[in-house]
Amino acid sequence: MLARFFNPERIAVVGATPKEGKVGNILLNNLMVFRASAKDVSIYPVNPHYEEILGIRCYPSVLQIADRVDLAVVAVPAMSVPEVLEQCGKKGITNVVVISAGFKEVGRAGAILESELVRICETSRIQLIGPNSMGILNTHADLNATFGRAAPAKGAIAFLSQSGAFVLAVIDWARTAHVGFSKVVSLGNKAVLDECDFLEYLVMDDETEVITLYLEDVRDGRRFMEVVSQVTSTKPVVVLKSGKTDAGARAASSHTGSIAGSVEAFRTAFHQAGVIEANSIEDLFDFSLTLSRMRGIKGGVAIVTNSGGPGVMAADALDELGLELASFERGTLEQLRALQIANFYNPVDVRGDADSELFGAALGIVAGDAQVGAILAILSPTAFIDFVRAGDYVLEFSDRKPIIPVFMGGERVSETIERFRAYGIRNYFDPGRAVKALSAVKQYTASKERVRAPPPHFTVDRATVERLLKPVEGEVARMGMGLQGFKILDAYGISVPNYGAAKTAEEALEIADRIGYPVAMKILSPDIVHKTDIGCVKLGVGREQVAETFFEIIHRAERYTSARRIEGVLIQEMIEGGKEVIVGMKRDPHFGPLMMFGLGGIYVEVFKDVSFGIAPLSKDDALDMIRNVRAYRLLRGVRGERMSDINSLVDVILRFSQLSTEFPVILEADLNPIKAFEHGKGCCVLDFKMVLRE
Amino acid sequence: MLARFFNPERIAVVGATPKEGKVGNILLNNLMVFRASAKDVSIYPVNPHYEEILGIRCYPSVLQIADRVDLAVVAVPAMSVPEVLEQCGKKGITNVVVISAGFKEVGRAGAILESELVRICETSRIQLIGPNSMGILNTHADLNATFGRAAPAKGAIAFLSQSGAFVLAVIDWARTAHVGFSKVVSLGNKAVLDECDFLEYLVMDDETEVITLYLEDVRDGRRFMEVVSQVTSTKPVVVLKSGKTDAGARAASSHTGSIAGSVEAFRTAFHQAGVIEANSIEDLFDFSLTLSRMRGIKGGVAIVTNSGGPGVMAADALDELGLELASFERGTLEQLRALQIANFYNPVDVRGDADSELFGAALGIVAGDAQVGAILAILSPTAFIDFVRAGDYVLEFSDRKPIIPVFMGGERVSETIERFRAYGIRNYFDPGRAVKALSAVKQYTASKERVRAPPPHFTVDRATVERLLKPVEGEVARMGMGLQGFKILDAYGISVPNYGAAKTAEEALEIADRIGYPVAMKILSPDIVHKTDIGCVKLGVGREQVAETFFEIIHRAERYTSARRIEGVLIQEMIEGGKEVIVGMKRDPHFGPLMMFGLGGIYVEVFKDVSFGIAPLSKDDALDMIRNVRAYRLLRGVRGERMSDINSLVDVILRFSQLSTEFPVILEADLNPIKAFEHGKGCCVLDFKMVLRE
Repeated sequence: MLARFFNPERIAVVGATPKEGKVGNILLNNLMVFRASAKDVSIYPVNPHYEEILGIRCYPSVLQIADRVDLAVVAVPAMSVPEVLEQCGKKGITNVVVISAGFKEVGRAGAILESELVRICETSRIQLIGPNSMGILNTHADLNATFGRAAPAKGAIAFLSQSGAFVLAVIDWARTAHVGFSKVVSLGNKAVLDECDFLEYLVMDDETEVITLYLEDVRDGRRFMEVVSQVTSTKPVVVLKSGKTDAGARAASSHTGSIAGSVEAFRTAFHQAGVIEANSIEDLFDFSLTLSRMRGIKGGVAIVTNSGGPGVMAADALDELGLELASFERGTLEQLRALQIANFYNPVDVRGDADSELFGAALGIVAGDAQVGAILAILSPTAFIDFVRAGDYVLEFSDRKPIIPVFMGGERVSETIERFRAYGIRNYFDPGRAVKALSAVKQYTASKERVRAPPPHFTVDRATVERLLKPVEGEVARMGMGLQGFKILDAYGISVPNYGAAKTAEEALEIADRIGYPVAMKILSPDIVHKTDIGCVKLGVGREQVAETFFEIIHRAERYTSARRIEGVLIQEMIEGGKEVIVGMKRDPHFGPLMMFGLGGIYVEVFKDVSFGIAPLSKDDALDMIRNVRAYRLLRGVRGERMSDINSLVDVILRFSQLSTEFPVILEADLNPIKAFEHGKGCCVLDFKMVLRE
Repeated sequence: MLARFFNPERIAVVGATPKEGKVGNILLNNLMVFRASAKDVSIYPVNPHYEEILGIRCYPSVLQIADRVDLAVVAVPAMSVPEVLEQCGKKGITNVVVISAGFKEVGRAGAILESELVRICETSRIQLIGPNSMGILNTHADLNATFGRAAPAKGAIAFLSQSGAFVLAVIDWARTAHVGFSKVVSLGNKAVLDECDFLEYLVMDDETEVITLYLEDVRDGRRFMEVVSQVTSTKPVVVLKSGKTDAGARAASSHTGSIAGSVEAFRTAFHQAGVIEANSIEDLFDFSLTLSRMRGIKGGVAIVTNSGGPGVMAADALDELGLELASFERGTLEQLRALQIANFYNPVDVRGDADSELFGAALGIVAGDAQVGAILAILSPTAFIDFVRAGDYVLEFSDRKPIIPVFMGGERVSETIERFRAYGIRNYFDPGRAVKALSAVKQYTASKERVRAPPPHFTVDRATVERLLKPVEGEVARMGMGLQGFKILDAYGISVPNYGAAKTAEEALEIADRIGYPVAMKILSPDIVHKTDIGCVKLGVGREQVAETFFEIIHRAERYTSARRIEGVLIQEMIEGGKEVIVGMKRDPHFGPLMMFGLGGIYVEVFKDVSFGIAPLSKDDALDMIRNVRAYRLLRGVRGERMSDINSLVDVILRFSQLSTEFPVILEADLNPIKAFEHGKGCCVLDFKMVLRE
């Protein structure tokens, strides 16, 4: 029951102290405020060195407390925490917040101590927040179980943070910035409870409209995606993820591996799960506050302003962020025209000499237009504007449409801004920032509209692949995968050229005759990866050269490996024409198979023009991946070319998604190149490389 | 003398009125404050309807004022402004601010009235600000000649704005946001004086460190570039330009024309002139305030923090904006290690349990490192930090290095933030925003380091081009420019394939023999632009087919135009190999020839991977253009290819820059494709299209 964390009646403060400035003292003081504000709340200081603290009886340990205890907040030295936890277990306390630091975050010894905490929690069924947490807050119950000195105002935003320091900063800032919260949890080291647990709780919490997360990593990426996908279908989740510079991830061996780092994995996971990503603290709370009031936009954005310049800035920002300016209905245009204002098309400009009444009239007309999904009400502080009156209009018409006020000024607008705040409406000074917040709403709308279909399941020959991927003694983990590769793809219904493996020149001729000329011939040996470089790949071989070429390839290969390690020569159909694309996969440590799509060669290498999806993918996901590369235009066909066979590419991505999901042993893979032919003519994988788990 | 605008002794307020709330009343009141604060200042209300206003004698017109008048501020109905200006002229008043609106901004009739103002100003040598200005401010003299109700604080930033409404908003906001200004000018319609005039004045103004501009357009782009280039070599200029959505510019006829809109022209002009561009109001003042304290960064950026999360956010932002994390000197590392802090590499993490003294010690050590150019001091409000003490350290070590404090919090940091302000130091709550401001300083540093060499001058055959570009009766302005095009390029020393024009099959053979086989053959006719589509281009023609091909091309062409309009057949050397690039030009209405460079075909069309420069270009400009496209890697050579001949491309860009500068009749042009060969082997323009002024 996570609910008990936020509405406890009996709270033990382990490590309470009368020494001012100490964590155990601030905590106790903060909780005394809670006791004063709520009835039936008892606080129990725990510290063997005191009989009484702040006038309340102090206990040597939680075991001496006679009553039931709902929540224990622990702020003792790290080394003493296991013992305290054991006692909590004995006492039957299931909800514990460990403030104490000195665990995983300080290195190996701390990590061992932390695993001891986990063990105790498992045995005693303790739900633990932390260690290294700054505590929790429930503003609606006046509960401040943190060592922040002051609690933020009540609000509709829940805030979960992996960084405790960041929680302290936000709490302190929130009071001056007038940002209110419902619940705040400093997750600390996430030894037991993590963001997923609280997401599941908060989605049901009536006081929370939007969930805001500061993350450095996730403990279980798959669970995170599952949980958060559920949550976002009901409430918006806004995330600030730090740690975007991951030079480490670049040292990979496949194309996909070298491009798909953890930044891409997180970004893709967020997108697929409907999470709004913020890139700065400002965005995090701008987005959250706006989403707490507006869950969606249906229609375009209207701008009503008394000043051209800022109106144009807003229109620029809308364009840049891909939001649409609403086209007004005829009736709206006629009514606006009757006002005799400067511009009655969107952006509506009532001009600098307009008074609040004229502005309000225009705003009211626009708010009645069915094509309008949201309104930016931008006002400069001219001599003619009475901001209090203008604010009345914004409040009045907010019933009809979500209105974001951009009342530009300082002293002259402060009273109105405060009034807006009482209604949960946030005023912006910078039109661009208002538009950015609006774009988060648009993004949430789009994510909710996206069909989340289940991934398709293809009937495949899984047994063959199991056999082929079974580890062979002494075999290298990285595989050129000539023959095996084609067999694996074949087994999953992915189209490859006609091929056959020849152990003798006679067999080679037989296979080539079956395939038709010319053919390609390649060495088959687990030891030879860069086949082309040593002349072990021959293209466009005609019937007369087959035997001779066979011997040449074998001969060259023998210089690099023993005859025992040469499995023969692959004879392969020559594929002409088509556009080159690449499908790849890298198994992300957090989220699993991160699939990549791009157009071959230069587009991937120079422009990094690729798209990602986390497997298993739905058909729409796969189609989105193809459409989201900039070079998609080339597949649609430029200069009178015919369109490429997109459906067959979707099919390859989905089948490879299934293969990647079903065989965790595959760490990285490139299907590269894949030749995509004209619409209706399919596609064909010409080469396949993968890296297997050792 | 623009100085007189800001330090006038005798000011006439034309249109002064005792009616409260009216512009003429607010203005007079604001100027009375000025009179009260400065000695030897006289204010003269002018209004024929009053004998006295606010206890001062009122004059029927400026002509009745006995004394000399330094400045007239005019707020009468638009129709009366010409008369007032005439009177100012007679009175010998040379500095006038026209607040009155109702001119160019309201349409045709207003524009005519405005041109009347310009005429009077020319005749009477009046320097006029406006019309439709909100007035001017000089905080250091307590002069508020605007109808904003309160003046901002003194500061080092001058602010010029084209939007009056925006000036009012900024002035009002500045007081609450604690942004100070030196001088503020609402430029209004810029009928006489514009941003260039004030830039020239402000560069000499001792009270101004940074010039901030809000622009919607410029009156004379070339002059703007010249003036602002001069200014930025001494003082930073930060611009917010609105109006970025120019769908109109897309309806162009060349590749270059379709890509190079006014947004690109402004961006390129800003970059070339060393102007820092801001994309939002927040950025505009963040950048300006930071630049008013820091003119440059020499070295990397160091981060010193007590909290990992925000430290990582800052490092992410540095990486994203291309700023370098400093590598510490050995001595620094040793001193930091001795402090026994969590991480003594950059970002330096003193950890959450550090007190202000430990933080200060680390900050001091880092400030002494010669590799460090600037420091981000990021502090979360833990229980152990005393922000006042931490602020002392920031102030103390600011002598050694520019330090940007990111003291994260609200109430707990407010006192320190105020102290910083007194020293002109701005605190940030969001580490990302601090880094963004720092990147503006980096940008200014880079622009100052850029060598601004004069453009080279090539000796060319200008007379030939003059002859070729002379308008021919009835000829279309758009030219395929087969033969003429090659002759023009030839005359400017730009390499084209060997070619010749044949009027007969015999001539064709003769020319082809001279060029060598195979050759390309194309129709020469001003009427036929899409030559390939109608079979009038033949490639790879051998000796035997020359005569036959000649007749075929002529025959096909005759179906599309009269024999009279067929000038013959162009015989052209076949060029094999090389990489395709495109050089283009579009004459921007503000800035002149906007040159474009990109890699041919897909890179330009799909990826819009192009770079721009405004001609005339220096050699470094041209080289920058080539290096700034993402596909530059392809020219450097991928997969073991040799590098392309970059020098020869620079030469083409520079020569074409000279041609574009010397012949304003050329409106748009594409040199496309240009084949760039290996290093040392030059390049060759295969086709040339242009649009001439009609």
